[in-house]
Amino acid sequence: MSSNSLNSQNMKLEVVVLPVSNVDQAKDFYKTLGWRLDADFVTGEDFRVVQLTPPGSEASIIFGSGVTLAAPGSVQGLYLIVYDIEAARAELAQVEERLRIDTRIGILINNAGVSTASSFADQSPDEVAKIINLNITAVTRLTSAVAPRFAKTGDGTIINISSVVGLAPEFGMTIYGATKAFVLFLTQGLHLELGPKGVYVQAVLPASTRTEIWERAGWDMNAVPPTMEVDELVDAALVGFDRRETVTMPSLPDANQWKTFDAARQSMIPNFNQVNAAARYHLVS
Amino acid sequence: MSSNSLNSQNMKLEVVVLPVSNVDQAKDFYKTLGWRLDADFVTGEDFRVVQLTPPGSEASIIFGSGVTLAAPGSVQGLYLIVYDIEAARAELAQVEERLRIDTRIGILINNAGVSTASSFADQSPDEVAKIINLNITAVTRLTSAVAPRFAKTGDGTIINISSVVGLAPEFGMTIYGATKAFVLFLTQGLHLELGPKGVYVQAVLPASTRTEIWERAGWDMNAVPPTMEVDELVDAALVGFDRRETVTMPSLPDANQWKTFDAARQSMIPNFNQVNAAARYHLVS
Repeated sequence: MSSNSLNSQNMKLEVVVLPVSNVDQAKDFYKTLGWRLDADFVTGEDFRVVQLTPPGSEASIIFGSGVTLAAPGSVQGLYLIVYDIEAARAELAQVEERLRIDTRIGILINNAGVSTASSFADQSPDEVAKIINLNITAVTRLTSAVAPRFAKTGDGTIINISSVVGLAPEFGMTIYGATKAFVLFLTQGLHLELGPKGVYVQAVLPASTRTEIWERAGWDMNAVPPTMEVDELVDAALVGFDRRETVTMPSLPDANQWKTFDAARQSMIPNFNQVNAAARYHLVS
Repeated sequence: MSSNSLNSQNMKLEVVVLPVSNVDQAKDFYKTLGWRLDADFVTGEDFRVVQLTPPGSEASIIFGSGVTLAAPGSVQGLYLIVYDIEAARAELAQVEERLRIDTRIGILINNAGVSTASSFADQSPDEVAKIINLNITAVTRLTSAVAPRFAKTGDGTIINISSVVGLAPEFGMTIYGATKAFVLFLTQGLHLELGPKGVYVQAVLPASTRTEIWERAGWDMNAVPPTMEVDELVDAALVGFDRRETVTMPSLPDANQWKTFDAARQSMIPNFNQVNAAARYHLVS
């Protein structure tokens, strides 16, 4: 095979793990570099998350400290993932190796994501593959790298940013939504697989949020409807985190709607006939 | 980056496009090669699909003829996709180019898929990436290659093989299920995007079916519960095809269960509050 295979699908990933005591220092450092401070949230005395964006960057960084877990001592840092179109498999491998062995890392936040404003028929195979590679493959590889260690030690947290778009093909963002449906299912499956081993897995499903994803995706910001501010979304996500929710949907006013939907899904399962097709599919001979 | 980046994730794809008049000839040819005839289905006078598997192959091939569409003349062949661990980006590009330009191709069937019997924590990042690359990236790239032409000519059919596992994280097949949730959403989105342009898009959700996917995935066949025979599944899928169903679930006895589930999903959409988080997520200050 050629040496440039799949080049266009690759990713650049970077990691910063910050000890608790250095969050302010790190924040000041990045601010002096001219990075934009998007958020600095504190929930109670135990949780803090800081988000900054480099000038012109396609991604923000997130770090934090002091996260309370079942086993609090296990958590000393958060992950930072920076996406860049120029990818490097070697860098991804480094991130995975770090996640695999660095016991100071107790939380993985899969926050990076891209979308596109164009319709499916206007996208190229390379474009859709790029979205899949960031929104799905990177998320799953990093999760796969850290999960065995979390499962073994019986603690750790994985937070996956999905989207309500993953519940709504009607929104016309087919590829983005499909990747977010994947992330929602992944989270539900990991909750069932890893939850009993002591790992907390949370999916956060924002609606439209005021981040740079819109402009990056090629939307005219004047055409984008009113969106939730990042701080309100993150506050809500952290409330869900404190409650150990598996699925956090800040934009859904009535939680019972989700419960009804999920119950309708589960009620199908025992009825799946593994041997014979339903009567409505029998051929008339 | 290194030249062997993502090697382990690649795929080998092959294509056979058979003119209508040669289906019997092709079938005989492959049988003389010692390939196993899995199925040869005729629905009415208009549709025929043949499936054969090479000895020891990880995938079957499918071809057929005479498919009735809104624009019948546009269809003269079906696609065949063979999966092989040794991949070749160049071959994928050839397939995509063929899909893009060959007007004899009126149907794309995304049938290839792999799973694994091991739990998420026992899988490596390379293993999960391999499943994603076949079940998601290949499906989406091929669909993306053919969709613009179908949309332009206002005909064509895309059939995606999803799975009821994509509705059930409870089955403990997290990565496989997440890829199938992706394929289901992809199909629903494409139905909404391409349907109005005259393209028919169908998702087929089998339950467990007696194919080589089980052994390939490492299951002990004695531990696998009773499964549907391939011919019963394909017959049912073709009935759904004839009815132009978007979602065909042969293993669900009561179609109303799907309708209830899908209605519960849709009923959430108008309620998404794009600006403010739900009251239950407000911080108590």
